[in-house]
Amino acid sequence: MQHAVRTFRLTLEYDGTDLAGWQVQAGATRTVQGELNAALARVTGEVVSVVGAGRTDAGVHAEAQVASVRLATGFAPDALRRALNAVLPRDVAVREVAEAPPDFHALRDARGKLYRYAVWNGASRSPLRARSHHTVAVRLDVDAMREGAQALVGRHDFTSFRAAGSEVLTSERSVSRFDVEARGDGEILFWVAGEGFLRHMVRIAVGTLLEVGTGRRTPAGVAEALAACERSAAGPTAPARGLTLVRVDY
Amino acid sequence: MQHAVRTFRLTLEYDGTDLAGWQVQAGATRTVQGELNAALARVTGEVVSVVGAGRTDAGVHAEAQVASVRLATGFAPDALRRALNAVLPRDVAVREVAEAPPDFHALRDARGKLYRYAVWNGASRSPLRARSHHTVAVRLDVDAMREGAQALVGRHDFTSFRAAGSEVLTSERSVSRFDVEARGDGEILFWVAGEGFLRHMVRIAVGTLLEVGTGRRTPAGVAEALAACERSAAGPTAPARGLTLVRVDY
Repeated sequence: MQHAVRTFRLTLEYDGTDLAGWQVQAGATRTVQGELNAALARVTGEVVSVVGAGRTDAGVHAEAQVASVRLATGFAPDALRRALNAVLPRDVAVREVAEAPPDFHALRDARGKLYRYAVWNGASRSPLRARSHHTVAVRLDVDAMREGAQALVGRHDFTSFRAAGSEVLTSERSVSRFDVEARGDGEILFWVAGEGFLRHMVRIAVGTLLEVGTGRRTPAGVAEALAACERSAAGPTAPARGLTLVRVDY
Repeated sequence: MQHAVRTFRLTLEYDGTDLAGWQVQAGATRTVQGELNAALARVTGEVVSVVGAGRTDAGVHAEAQVASVRLATGFAPDALRRALNAVLPRDVAVREVAEAPPDFHALRDARGKLYRYAVWNGASRSPLRARSHHTVAVRLDVDAMREGAQALVGRHDFTSFRAAGSEVLTSERSVSRFDVEARGDGEILFWVAGEGFLRHMVRIAVGTLLEVGTGRRTPAGVAEALAACERSAAGPTAPARGLTLVRVDY
């Protein structure tokens, strides 16, 4: 039986620890997009490639990444969700499947994203947070980091906070929120929202703020790094394991 | 230089996923006690065996397991903590080291323990909770489980909730708290406190309550299972991955 082509919107959760990021790569490397394409082929028999709202790096997690795909299938959305979860590997799951307008495109239509970067700053390492948090042993000054983060809010040229070698037309981006939240006995969460981000932008921003937190850089030094418009003016790229894509807005 | 023998109290956190439980075993198997003994030998040069407050099973986690050990070492407690964390594997850490009274014994002196059992009952699997939660796909009736759990509070003969073949003198135990907490969009936490527990007792209790949650057993059936005093009257042993030793009281 021939089915009409429909567009689906998939909401995905994944533990990025053992995944080589979103985008399909040559070779045997496991990626989120690759696992999802394979699961769709097994379930529907169609060879397709899903479009993701953002190309998360190797090791980065997602609570609610969004993907779009066009399929000529008779599956009801919820039956498709269950069938995909039955064949996807343990570290990737589909939280929701919905039928979308025919021209829905997860990347092009995304209006904003929310990321959370988690740091463990307790007195000792935390094995239960080893996969989800970046551990910083030196005591961090949360107020100084909070002050520094405010320099990044607004529309700026983020050239200093862009992975070297990345090719994009413009390095201007708008950050609507950059909050630093200290929780309980050693957890520090950075909440970063914006329309879109340059490659490694959130991780370089956090790496720069961690320099502020340890006193290697002043809070005002964050604005200076931004103004310099060169990668070397900002701090190091914070490790992928602390980063989670929390939400994509449409 | 000869140091006087001192007794230390160690507070431990571990991710039990890849560990074969607390107790040292023959062969190459990794256990918490074995890793800690090896770390102590490397750091202090002494061959000792730590005593744990409870012998957690393979796959069970701990936020604050307690261990005691006697050492003829000159280390200050906090320096010992740091040295141990530098050599322990990533899934085991020492949160605290304190000097204790000479006769302190982590097992004998423990007055109570708090366990948490985490269930994921969301509409889809949750990869980010795959290591810490037991996933139950069927929607659970939290009120019914809460009602059933109350039958387990108090002093009872827990023969029905004891692993077959375990050898203990008495199967009477006191449970001071058995709470069922529903959180947000699919997380259910069982909080169980008591002086001490029989082997697999918490996991069999949770396994029995999950039968109540799915409607296979009535809330009153929990008291009946208890009264029967035979293992076959209770439900299955819930998987280790959902269980965390939260605290030991002295």
